[in-house]
Amino acid sequence: MPNPTAAMLVIGDEILSGRTRDSNMYHLAGRLTEKGIDLKEVRVVSDDRAAIVAAVKALSAAHDHVFTSGGIGPTHDDITADCIAEAFGVGIDVREDARRILASHYPEGEAALTPARLRMARIPDGAVLIDNPVSKAPGFAIGNVHVMAGVPSVFEAMVESVLPLLTGGAPLISESVRIDRGESTVATELGDIAARFPQVSIGSYPFQRDGRYGTNIVLRSADRAALDAATNDVRALVD
Amino acid sequence: MPNPTAAMLVIGDEILSGRTRDSNMYHLAGRLTEKGIDLKEVRVVSDDRAAIVAAVKALSAAHDHVFTSGGIGPTHDDITADCIAEAFGVGIDVREDARRILASHYPEGEAALTPARLRMARIPDGAVLIDNPVSKAPGFAIGNVHVMAGVPSVFEAMVESVLPLLTGGAPLISESVRIDRGESTVATELGDIAARFPQVSIGSYPFQRDGRYGTNIVLRSADRAALDAATNDVRALVD
Repeated sequence: MPNPTAAMLVIGDEILSGRTRDSNMYHLAGRLTEKGIDLKEVRVVSDDRAAIVAAVKALSAAHDHVFTSGGIGPTHDDITADCIAEAFGVGIDVREDARRILASHYPEGEAALTPARLRMARIPDGAVLIDNPVSKAPGFAIGNVHVMAGVPSVFEAMVESVLPLLTGGAPLISESVRIDRGESTVATELGDIAARFPQVSIGSYPFQRDGRYGTNIVLRSADRAALDAATNDVRALVD
Repeated sequence: MPNPTAAMLVIGDEILSGRTRDSNMYHLAGRLTEKGIDLKEVRVVSDDRAAIVAAVKALSAAHDHVFTSGGIGPTHDDITADCIAEAFGVGIDVREDARRILASHYPEGEAALTPARLRMARIPDGAVLIDNPVSKAPGFAIGNVHVMAGVPSVFEAMVESVLPLLTGGAPLISESVRIDRGESTVATELGDIAARFPQVSIGSYPFQRDGRYGTNIVLRSADRAALDAATNDVRALVD
């Protein structure tokens, strides 16, 4: 059975303006690979209602799971929750359980829940909350979409809350072989090996370091025996 | 006149598997902002023909410029050039000028052009070459799509070859104000300021450091006077 597939949607002008270097994509990609869920696509969109709604609909229809990052805080540019409600055609309002969780974060309790902070308790109808052990304000899941915060420490904590609930496939295992010359010197042979082992994905990643060319050949498969056989063939090219 | 818009397409399994942390997106985002071209969307897709062709078509139709990264090397997993040709409905073959440029990279000249290396001289019909001062193998542009290598040093060099040829808009200028408390404490006032200055984009980026909450408020505009006025209003919240 093929592994479940996933897509990620990163929401935020700060990534697209080059102000912030995204780290959530890199983190999620690694964790999903370990879990045996194949991340097939990532999209980054700005804080724009139409763009977010369209991306959520497209990714939700095409993949088993969708993970979003960003836009669920208390400020005017935090519009993700409303966009998710619109994409699923459901209502959204402050929800009692989310409100209680949020209040527990502040020493003053309920009294601390200003209108801005209460925005973080607005949850689309029918969603399930995602635990946020870092700063309380919850994420939520609706349908196959998991909605999480953009702050990396919170995002990563929410990923750990969500992953145990999902069914993974066979985790991909990988081997890598480094060669100290350009990839074109082994391209034909690599293509032949890739054709002989269809259950192994073989990637070739050239690099330049100190003015010299090199290539990392990375082999990935859920099948240990095929992975080992293909890796041996690649090593034989290098020796 | 609004600024030109752009999208980026990152092609490569190595990003989606979490093996490699993308840096090209961060680099391009910063350079486009300086140039006055608004990066509106990024997509990351795997080395999959149907996924690449669909993304190129969608992004090319929706934006003034599209920049792609990855998949133009000599190995079996380098399928970007063929996908671009398919997306534009044109043929693709080894082109004489690209072949000459490539041969000039090797001390042995033409004799070094194995079938694998010649793949890097396959250019879709009607495309214009993009100069690669780092390792010769050219990128190319067809329609509004600029096709560049994935290796960061080469990608960055190609970006510098392309940007002077594009017409930018008014460069976005930005100011930022850091406050040493959570964003919810200023959320209402920030929303008011954002409403008063529609020509200024105001983003609120919370962070946690050493267990304390803080927020960076970033204001961006092409209009210096409006930017200064809005920034003053934000500073007044903090003092």
